[in-house]
Amino acid sequence: MNDTERAAMEAAVHILPISGLPEVNPGDDIDSMLIDAIQSSAGDLQRGDVIVVTHKIVSKAEGRIVDLESVDPSPFARKWAEAWGKDPRQVEVVLSEATRIVRMHRGLIIAETRHGFICANAGVDASNASSGTVVLLPKDPDASAERIRGALTRRYFPDAGDDERPIGVIVTDSFGRAWRHGIVNIAVGVAGINPLVDYRGQHDPVGYELRATVLAIADELAGAAELVMHKIHRRPAAIVRGYEWQGGQETGTGRDLVMPHERNLFP
Amino acid sequence: MNDTERAAMEAAVHILPISGLPEVNPGDDIDSMLIDAIQSSAGDLQRGDVIVVTHKIVSKAEGRIVDLESVDPSPFARKWAEAWGKDPRQVEVVLSEATRIVRMHRGLIIAETRHGFICANAGVDASNASSGTVVLLPKDPDASAERIRGALTRRYFPDAGDDERPIGVIVTDSFGRAWRHGIVNIAVGVAGINPLVDYRGQHDPVGYELRATVLAIADELAGAAELVMHKIHRRPAAIVRGYEWQGGQETGTGRDLVMPHERNLFP
Repeated sequence: MNDTERAAMEAAVHILPISGLPEVNPGDDIDSMLIDAIQSSAGDLQRGDVIVVTHKIVSKAEGRIVDLESVDPSPFARKWAEAWGKDPRQVEVVLSEATRIVRMHRGLIIAETRHGFICANAGVDASNASSGTVVLLPKDPDASAERIRGALTRRYFPDAGDDERPIGVIVTDSFGRAWRHGIVNIAVGVAGINPLVDYRGQHDPVGYELRATVLAIADELAGAAELVMHKIHRRPAAIVRGYEWQGGQETGTGRDLVMPHERNLFP
Repeated sequence: MNDTERAAMEAAVHILPISGLPEVNPGDDIDSMLIDAIQSSAGDLQRGDVIVVTHKIVSKAEGRIVDLESVDPSPFARKWAEAWGKDPRQVEVVLSEATRIVRMHRGLIIAETRHGFICANAGVDASNASSGTVVLLPKDPDASAERIRGALTRRYFPDAGDDERPIGVIVTDSFGRAWRHGIVNIAVGVAGINPLVDYRGQHDPVGYELRATVLAIADELAGAAELVMHKIHRRPAAIVRGYEWQGGQETGTGRDLVMPHERNLFP
């Protein structure tokens, strides 16, 4: 590497895969499992790191798995499933996870979850689940993120004060989007960082006030992490290193990323 | 760095900022300007690099700027602007860029553009524009991406064959999302890579077929690049290095990311 290349790498943001996590089962201590995997695949954490973890392993550890054999589908779930070639038990789980149906159309269910997320199948996911089971979203993904943040902070920054936030944690899921094809990784749980960066009131290089610019950086961090978390490899976590988050002590949660009902133009 | 840390950095995806681009004006050769900026801020490109460029500099170079003094607002634009405290000339430009109004609500205009994008203000942007002007989306962002890809390929990979695609190029804008707070960087123009990775038919580690998994990786790459392209610094471009795109020769365009009308549940 020459000087230019070295300087570029120093100014760069790095996305480091965390590999080597074993299959996660209900009751597993994923905080410890994550620490082991971080240790073997990346070494120590650094101040400013954001650790991104797919909700799938969080949900599994928290027992948010439903055995489809235990599900007794309602007549409505049966009818819909039959019309669109779906598993009626899976449809039943989706409906029971939904607080509101936003659209049911041609076999697709877009629903609101208890967290306020609007997404396909109310976040119920059959991929990467053992055969015959489905995985739900964590009950409180922000609490999960905060618990992981605490565990990692105690392990890697034992001297950090109670109000210090040396690292951030994001729990992710992949959501479809209105109007855009394909799914992207987004943040469902956030701890230690502010998921939004507010440029309002600041000025751009020509002095124009950036009036409407609130960036959902937790979603961008989640998407960035996905670039090393390919679904078919077992890499359920990543470290984003070198991103200078703003806000200092100011943190937020995944709920901050949910558009308030009164501002939702697509109910 | 110890061995673990070195291995982690080698497995990482890196997002390198491209700094030092001068202010861009209509008619400027941004392909050359980009090459100069890449040279001074990152050195040579490498095979597999994805160069991410904000549409703002592309639009400016292509003359997609409107001087608001030249705009004569329609009575409808005047009425709406007056009701919501907007500049009627800016509203007029938004309406003229729209092929379809999706929502007009409390001063907010969500519109479809000629490219099929559904976004705020039909992509018309006042931030980072010189005072008294607004910047439009490029007429054909895929063509712009392809032109930049060609120029960078000729400069950095002069021996590449005509059907070789050593690098990818993404032109970005930041869009709001239905149901989620905050804007994120997304791909409006794509060249050299496939913007979607299709995992359908592949199997996850427990043998479950990943049926519905089409990842919009161009949007994730765009969001990742934003992490070094903070709005208030002059860094309108970035290099994503180390991401193993799939697909080989198979490429696509930004249009592939637009949900087809017949599948749009939120018209």
